[in-house]
Amino acid sequence: MIYLDNAATTRVSQPVADAVYEVLTECFANPSSLYGIGFEAQKRLEAARRTVAQAMGASPDEVYFTGSGTEANNLAVLGGARARKAWGRSVVLTGFEHPSVEQCAKALSQEGFAVRRIMPDQNGQIDIDELLGSVGKDTALVAVMHINNEIGTVLDVESIARRIKEINRRTAVHCDNVQGFLKHPAPRLGEGIDTMAVSAHKIHGPKGVGALYVRKGHNLQNVLFGGLQERALRPGTENLAYAAGFAKAVELAAASRVETFAKLREINDKLRAQVTALDNVRINSPENNSPYILNFSLIGYKSETLLHFLEQKEIYVSAGSACSKGEKSHTLSAMALPRGVIEGAVRVSFSDENSAQDAEMLAKALAEAQRTLVHN
Amino acid sequence: MIYLDNAATTRVSQPVADAVYEVLTECFANPSSLYGIGFEAQKRLEAARRTVAQAMGASPDEVYFTGSGTEANNLAVLGGARARKAWGRSVVLTGFEHPSVEQCAKALSQEGFAVRRIMPDQNGQIDIDELLGSVGKDTALVAVMHINNEIGTVLDVESIARRIKEINRRTAVHCDNVQGFLKHPAPRLGEGIDTMAVSAHKIHGPKGVGALYVRKGHNLQNVLFGGLQERALRPGTENLAYAAGFAKAVELAAASRVETFAKLREINDKLRAQVTALDNVRINSPENNSPYILNFSLIGYKSETLLHFLEQKEIYVSAGSACSKGEKSHTLSAMALPRGVIEGAVRVSFSDENSAQDAEMLAKALAEAQRTLVHN
Repeated sequence: MIYLDNAATTRVSQPVADAVYEVLTECFANPSSLYGIGFEAQKRLEAARRTVAQAMGASPDEVYFTGSGTEANNLAVLGGARARKAWGRSVVLTGFEHPSVEQCAKALSQEGFAVRRIMPDQNGQIDIDELLGSVGKDTALVAVMHINNEIGTVLDVESIARRIKEINRRTAVHCDNVQGFLKHPAPRLGEGIDTMAVSAHKIHGPKGVGALYVRKGHNLQNVLFGGLQERALRPGTENLAYAAGFAKAVELAAASRVETFAKLREINDKLRAQVTALDNVRINSPENNSPYILNFSLIGYKSETLLHFLEQKEIYVSAGSACSKGEKSHTLSAMALPRGVIEGAVRVSFSDENSAQDAEMLAKALAEAQRTLVHN
Repeated sequence: MIYLDNAATTRVSQPVADAVYEVLTECFANPSSLYGIGFEAQKRLEAARRTVAQAMGASPDEVYFTGSGTEANNLAVLGGARARKAWGRSVVLTGFEHPSVEQCAKALSQEGFAVRRIMPDQNGQIDIDELLGSVGKDTALVAVMHINNEIGTVLDVESIARRIKEINRRTAVHCDNVQGFLKHPAPRLGEGIDTMAVSAHKIHGPKGVGALYVRKGHNLQNVLFGGLQERALRPGTENLAYAAGFAKAVELAAASRVETFAKLREINDKLRAQVTALDNVRINSPENNSPYILNFSLIGYKSETLLHFLEQKEIYVSAGSACSKGEKSHTLSAMALPRGVIEGAVRVSFSDENSAQDAEMLAKALAEAQRTLVHN
């Protein structure tokens, strides 16, 4: 099997599965319970938090575990904007944010916020000056993702955040870093970025746990209400087993990050060259894309047709975000690309487990597809 | 170890841990992905949903997986009231709901809803006529828990829900059944109850997964926004491993429910008699309490002192809800009990794994505590 859909989710690594299993079988107490075995669970939870925090470049008391990257994005975006509704009137975001940010913005517009989206151009780039030009004294929140999940655009969120704060110090700046965490260098926190969302399952952790960095002193309104867990910001009995699994995934990813980045840069660039050499193809990823993602369209073929052709060779790619379950690509639509390009899109996404040979096999299979499949 | 804090959380059973581990190691694909291994994951997710739905007495398309019981309560209460804000002005709930319901009501009051709480009396009972008398044509939502988590009051939610609907068919009726699920007989759905929340970790499942029953046609506003997972009502990549673990826990609990109920009824009644025989004691649980919970106070002793005394004998109980992390009991405060009673409260909560001997050891230890510990 050649699995090239790692932006959708990654294989859970064996040490992660083992870490989860160990907690499930050996440490069942409620971390909020006031006796020894509860304190032991709490201690393990804080150890996991330290590991995740360190990888984010945050202090442990700035990191909150959530049930997903989606929930982390919701807490930051809904909670950040709502906490500023006394004076905030508008929300600014890129036009290719993940649905868990985009749909929050839509909800906020129904709550009365004016929402301004900066659309990507046909090269998948965002005009940062246009974005900054949209920030004003009534801007409650700006959301800018670090790595786009469909085409792999890399945004310099560190500098964007700093420049937003120069315009309005009170504007909440959120960064969805679900696709960049422990793949790209960690954006420096505390100099502009107020909140940053990450998720375990994009780095071989379990599906069902994420984390949100919240800068000390940054004001967020709760999205979920209940008990006092996670300093009352994220209620619900703590999922220690997944926190421990997340921490294990973080340790492993941190140890190989630099090396993996370099390896995938080469693989991605080579694949781009091979795909470009095919007939009637459009590369949808920008120049300087993330080495983890390459998006292209074979014009004249539907994505589904290609996906099934590749699947027969046990090569797994996708047409876009798994969250959209086969609906038209959000990012490519935002780029206003022609229908034929959108409908023929293929997203290839790598992990450290992929080899040059995987990409080689894909390139060969794509050439074969063009030779053997019937055009639309 | 004698673990008697099962209302806080239960030990994860071995078959549950195995089920989680199996998915983590063998079925990592994203259930929303459009290729074979994704469909396989989706198939397993739907199998887990069928198991949970059957135990709730629901059809599978009425059951939504969430990240916790807390999240299920939030979705039902916030989502149910907000979906009715065009005409709904008030929310009614019991005064001893779990924080994940109570704090949602507080949030709704800040959004403009008038919140009416029906307080329990000193016997831990709710005046149902008073509750029904508070329901009117502008009541958006009523929340009534099935089993109180601190003292074990059993409310006939089935009949209460039916009577609410006789007053106002449009009122959303939510039942928090986190403490009753697969312990007490399942309340019949569809004849009044619109939403019902359950959680895995109270029945030996993992911490970090719950489910919400939503009656077909019942209107809920999203609380979290994002992708199209869980029919777009609960976004975020599906946590198949925990859904499978939850389903395994459900199977096991369903198989032994009737037998366990009878066993714990005897154990609970005997413990009540033994505690009652001690000096200076108050039973805080009502008559006809759930066999799973017994709450009492040894007047003149602080809960912490008793908890630590018992912990030295490896007997684990609590002073109340773990979610409140040692803060004053919400339920006993709502009952307006004297300070000395609240501060000396002990909650004993059973699971099928407890034996008559466990309760026996506890009763002995309590008698010893009264002989050896110094009064306040």
